[in-house]
Amino acid sequence: MMSTSASHPFDDAITLTLDDDGAWRAHAAKAYWNMVGPFGGISAATALHAVMIQPNRQGEPLAMTVNYAAPIAAGPIRIKPQLLRTNRTTQHWWLQMLQTDSNTGREASVLLAQLVTGVRRPVWSAPALQAPGAPAVDTLVSRKPRQGIEWFERYDIRFVDNPFKAADPDAPVLAYVRDDPPRALDFPSLAAICDTFFPSIFAKRREVVPIATVSMNIYFHLNAAELAAIGAAHLLGSTRSSVYHEGFFDAEAQVWSGPRLIATTQQVVWYKQ
Amino acid sequence: MMSTSASHPFDDAITLTLDDDGAWRAHAAKAYWNMVGPFGGISAATALHAVMIQPNRQGEPLAMTVNYAAPIAAGPIRIKPQLLRTNRTTQHWWLQMLQTDSNTGREASVLLAQLVTGVRRPVWSAPALQAPGAPAVDTLVSRKPRQGIEWFERYDIRFVDNPFKAADPDAPVLAYVRDDPPRALDFPSLAAICDTFFPSIFAKRREVVPIATVSMNIYFHLNAAELAAIGAAHLLGSTRSSVYHEGFFDAEAQVWSGPRLIATTQQVVWYKQ
Repeated sequence: MMSTSASHPFDDAITLTLDDDGAWRAHAAKAYWNMVGPFGGISAATALHAVMIQPNRQGEPLAMTVNYAAPIAAGPIRIKPQLLRTNRTTQHWWLQMLQTDSNTGREASVLLAQLVTGVRRPVWSAPALQAPGAPAVDTLVSRKPRQGIEWFERYDIRFVDNPFKAADPDAPVLAYVRDDPPRALDFPSLAAICDTFFPSIFAKRREVVPIATVSMNIYFHLNAAELAAIGAAHLLGSTRSSVYHEGFFDAEAQVWSGPRLIATTQQVVWYKQ
Repeated sequence: MMSTSASHPFDDAITLTLDDDGAWRAHAAKAYWNMVGPFGGISAATALHAVMIQPNRQGEPLAMTVNYAAPIAAGPIRIKPQLLRTNRTTQHWWLQMLQTDSNTGREASVLLAQLVTGVRRPVWSAPALQAPGAPAVDTLVSRKPRQGIEWFERYDIRFVDNPFKAADPDAPVLAYVRDDPPRALDFPSLAAICDTFFPSIFAKRREVVPIATVSMNIYFHLNAAELAAIGAAHLLGSTRSSVYHEGFFDAEAQVWSGPRLIATTQQVVWYKQ
């Protein structure tokens, strides 16, 4: 069933209200819960949404780095976006997400984000990477990677091959992804999708091990009209890692809409053992 | 001639002194001048240095994002590092570089940086990417990419092939790089080297066009002892882009020391036409 935008759980999850002191208030959404806190993608989306709604914003998102400083608890989150520089073609933003620490009773940072918005211009443009070959999405089956994790229920994820059975565990993992129920793509939902890709360490180790994203970087490669034209179509993600070293590994992904590369994203991720 | 560390222009360029108000003061270094401001890599190195010298820093650099908010002018720069969260294995830092705007007379942000430091642990580790094949560094000639740009004189850069003549302008560009004169690698100098790689748009367009880095992201993949063991050896960089779109393109690079991947880095870059 196609939900209307107003009732979609994604819109509920990134809803912001203005506090008396000018900060924005969100609520960590149970609909996007991960193991011990909200799915990192929904926190990134909420941070981006807080910049998108600023009346003095110019241009569209170009670059975003989200540092996950601490687990986010159920309950209210306060967000303080700051515009620190406006140039002719770019704006530089920084924001903190804050929660009251139950031990100290003081408000502390749980997420930091730097964002750049920019004005695109109709100049020479060209692709450099070509989209990977993949079967049509309709020929693949939607599977929840694991049972009992709420945010998996909010996405239709279709792996091209089972990554746990990959002949080469270092090869890129291909999967289609879309909001479930379908929802027209926007910059916040694209940011969230950048955090849905398969952690390659599970393929490398052939098992699920405890992990936590420390930092996620996203570059957006399309303008608002191109984004709107995608609608609720599936995106194809291709993800791989470079190295697993002493408790931290990296990951990168390209996000394709048909032949068009619409985002590139990277993470550094903590792993337990 | 091998300089002593104390007299190396890199050390002079990242020197910080403490102001009365607790901010750190640097000077935009003529020895690393680019076209209209200092080389972005030296600004990134100075930002990282400002965190490295904090007495309450725990762990080593894991992730760093530098957003270049405005051209940096000759003269003093003030740097305000803030430690916003300390966890068991990570610390989350944010800093601003500020300069007094000659038009308004007010101090304004010229650079924003988020950094994560982390404690590595001797757990399971493994490579995923393999180093690209390249001729030995001694078989290649050091060339300055262009005359008259001061920071090029501070690096020994040896391209494996002339990128302006590449058969495939989208193929990765390989080059060795090292400080010139040689200097033992440390985290700030590695950060600077991440900004030395060939802008692929010059290969794609077969000409030099005006560009400016908007944001640079760096993940570090080695501990301090591994870094110290590299000394002043050349590093091998492999860089490519994904897409050039309406005034902005991305770039990524892997940085190798022999068979070891020591850093991965990405940029989003403004281009003029």
